[in-house]
Amino acid sequence: MLNFNYLVSTRVFFGRESLQNLGNEIKECGERVLFVSGQGSIKKTGLYDEIIDIFHQNGFSYDELSGVQPNPRISLVRKGVDLCRKEKIDCILAVGGGSVIDTAKTIATGFYHEGDPWELFVLGDASVKKALPVGTVLTFAGTGSEMNGNAVISNEETREKLAIHKDILRPRFSILDPTYTFSVSKHQTAAGTVDIFSHVLEQYFSPTREAFIQDRLSEGLLRTCIQYGPVALTAPSDYEARAQLMWASSIALNGLLGYGRVSDWATHGIEHALSAMYDVTHGVGLAILTPFWMEHVLGDETVGKFLEYAKYVWGIKGNNHQTVAKRGIERTREFFTSLGMPQRLRDVGVDQNALMTMAQKAVVHGTLGKFKKLGVQDVFTILENAY
Amino acid sequence: MLNFNYLVSTRVFFGRESLQNLGNEIKECGERVLFVSGQGSIKKTGLYDEIIDIFHQNGFSYDELSGVQPNPRISLVRKGVDLCRKEKIDCILAVGGGSVIDTAKTIATGFYHEGDPWELFVLGDASVKKALPVGTVLTFAGTGSEMNGNAVISNEETREKLAIHKDILRPRFSILDPTYTFSVSKHQTAAGTVDIFSHVLEQYFSPTREAFIQDRLSEGLLRTCIQYGPVALTAPSDYEARAQLMWASSIALNGLLGYGRVSDWATHGIEHALSAMYDVTHGVGLAILTPFWMEHVLGDETVGKFLEYAKYVWGIKGNNHQTVAKRGIERTREFFTSLGMPQRLRDVGVDQNALMTMAQKAVVHGTLGKFKKLGVQDVFTILENAY
Repeated sequence: MLNFNYLVSTRVFFGRESLQNLGNEIKECGERVLFVSGQGSIKKTGLYDEIIDIFHQNGFSYDELSGVQPNPRISLVRKGVDLCRKEKIDCILAVGGGSVIDTAKTIATGFYHEGDPWELFVLGDASVKKALPVGTVLTFAGTGSEMNGNAVISNEETREKLAIHKDILRPRFSILDPTYTFSVSKHQTAAGTVDIFSHVLEQYFSPTREAFIQDRLSEGLLRTCIQYGPVALTAPSDYEARAQLMWASSIALNGLLGYGRVSDWATHGIEHALSAMYDVTHGVGLAILTPFWMEHVLGDETVGKFLEYAKYVWGIKGNNHQTVAKRGIERTREFFTSLGMPQRLRDVGVDQNALMTMAQKAVVHGTLGKFKKLGVQDVFTILENAY
Repeated sequence: MLNFNYLVSTRVFFGRESLQNLGNEIKECGERVLFVSGQGSIKKTGLYDEIIDIFHQNGFSYDELSGVQPNPRISLVRKGVDLCRKEKIDCILAVGGGSVIDTAKTIATGFYHEGDPWELFVLGDASVKKALPVGTVLTFAGTGSEMNGNAVISNEETREKLAIHKDILRPRFSILDPTYTFSVSKHQTAAGTVDIFSHVLEQYFSPTREAFIQDRLSEGLLRTCIQYGPVALTAPSDYEARAQLMWASSIALNGLLGYGRVSDWATHGIEHALSAMYDVTHGVGLAILTPFWMEHVLGDETVGKFLEYAKYVWGIKGNNHQTVAKRGIERTREFFTSLGMPQRLRDVGVDQNALMTMAQKAVVHGTLGKFKKLGVQDVFTILENAY
């Protein structure tokens, strides 16, 4: 196990009616709130009105920034930063999924950054120094942003999608009521489940060989996705399925699985290049790419990890290592397909001529990934195979 | 999954040389430190001198309270509280295992309590309202006290052993360097491993049937104990084994496994009654009692959980439910025995005539345990079987 510093500072209120904690939590941060939300689904479900009521009851003043899109844009972040400065905002409440939360986090730190907020992504994590407090009310399980210090933002001008990571970006509190995800569509539920699954895999396929605890915890979360993803698709109001996926989402990427070992993140890197160019749903991109990434990196030196994966996640047995490993990959593909995910890049409108550009955008620092280091040609091969 | 509020606020510095963070962490809390330690092993290993050096380098003033015993006593807590008041202590540093940390936590909250600190244990958790900041340098893996808000203290006059639990008792920071556990004896290493194992079981054997994530994470930690406990016994300086056990100890009881479900804690309840009367090592008591508790609560209505346990922890297969369940229990007993633990209460100097008194002391609130509620007669039977 490698050395690590662990601090997961987000206070989580989990379960039905946990929204009742919202007033007190905001009070700890201040009185002037920026209310960030997405495409309006919270108005349909009534959650919007509930939150506004809580604002009124507690005498909070608030400004609204709605309209956050999937693959959230830096342009809206800029608007948010301006609003926070003009209205002297004390804290930001993100009500939605990962895109909304990532927007809120970036506004929170952009508020203290003198230049344009996109600079933070170009300069990197060291430039993130201070942030307004952020709270969240989660309506979508997948990204894990509700409990971590990550934010991924797209720049629509440069067609880039970049991330920042810093502990001060962890939400101060997160309200996780699984009933708020009952209305998430089948397709989005599937994409969210794949996202959770992929977050675990990115940490599980690690070059750090001694990470027994982290491996076993990871397998537990993967099995949770396998168990409850299909249930949530078939029975969208199944509380237990929604609860299991929501909590899996939060702990899959809050540090628990990653601390003490090196993580891979190649598949996410490739997917970010993909969805920066094509605005593909993140989970859909991951569902297509993951099995092809697995096939590409499987080799004599990596087969051991694939055997663990096949055995402990999928219960596959056998004596031929390559056969068992490949069966594990096939089960992964079948699982994603069973959730209704496409299998090929051609199915999501990608132009074959764009694959090399995408590969070059994915490999910005010489190589991509840590489990097996990939060059541009590797990524191009994965993309071609996935086409 | 049941509703829960999650906050694990302890900052952990894990790995070799993580002691280098000590000075900065104490600085955040103040300048006047109470240095709490045990029976002197840290003087032999040199850790004591290293810490004193850090105090000097940073200009901290300090007072010492050493001599904390296993099954730590309220009398020493009283001395600590007096010392903190007299010397206007800002924060408490516990260097040792669970007994030292629990003593430090109790002093920390006793400092703010007007009456005698034992009152906090009699009045219960609601009486714990405020505490001085506590930091820890861990030298023994087992209790999990380094990352939770629990403290267990014995009253040598009343022969009681009681616990308090409160989030404000969670250490502000914990320094977890596995090399500090290289010198822990075989016997104590075994007892610590059993303690971790038992902490997981107490949460795993839950009446909450839907706790899929928690169950799978629990199995991962149980397998970690099974994998690395024997290694640490055979090769005390095996860094990876010590690291895995140390981290398992911390996350087994920091809330991760317990949030969202009801926990049992019957075996701990019985063991506390035992070690309050006989000063038996906590892990030894648990090793003896656990298999007998399992045998007693195994029945048609509980067999399902035992099957999961046998299958996912021990890899046992078979069609006859009772046979598989019993085999899982037997494997548990064999594991503890392989670590050198005794199997019977008679082996640790318990008087058979004391069993009923012990049962009565264990069952203070009508029944004990939640997985299956035990009355005094149940506990007596378990104790008799274990004699």
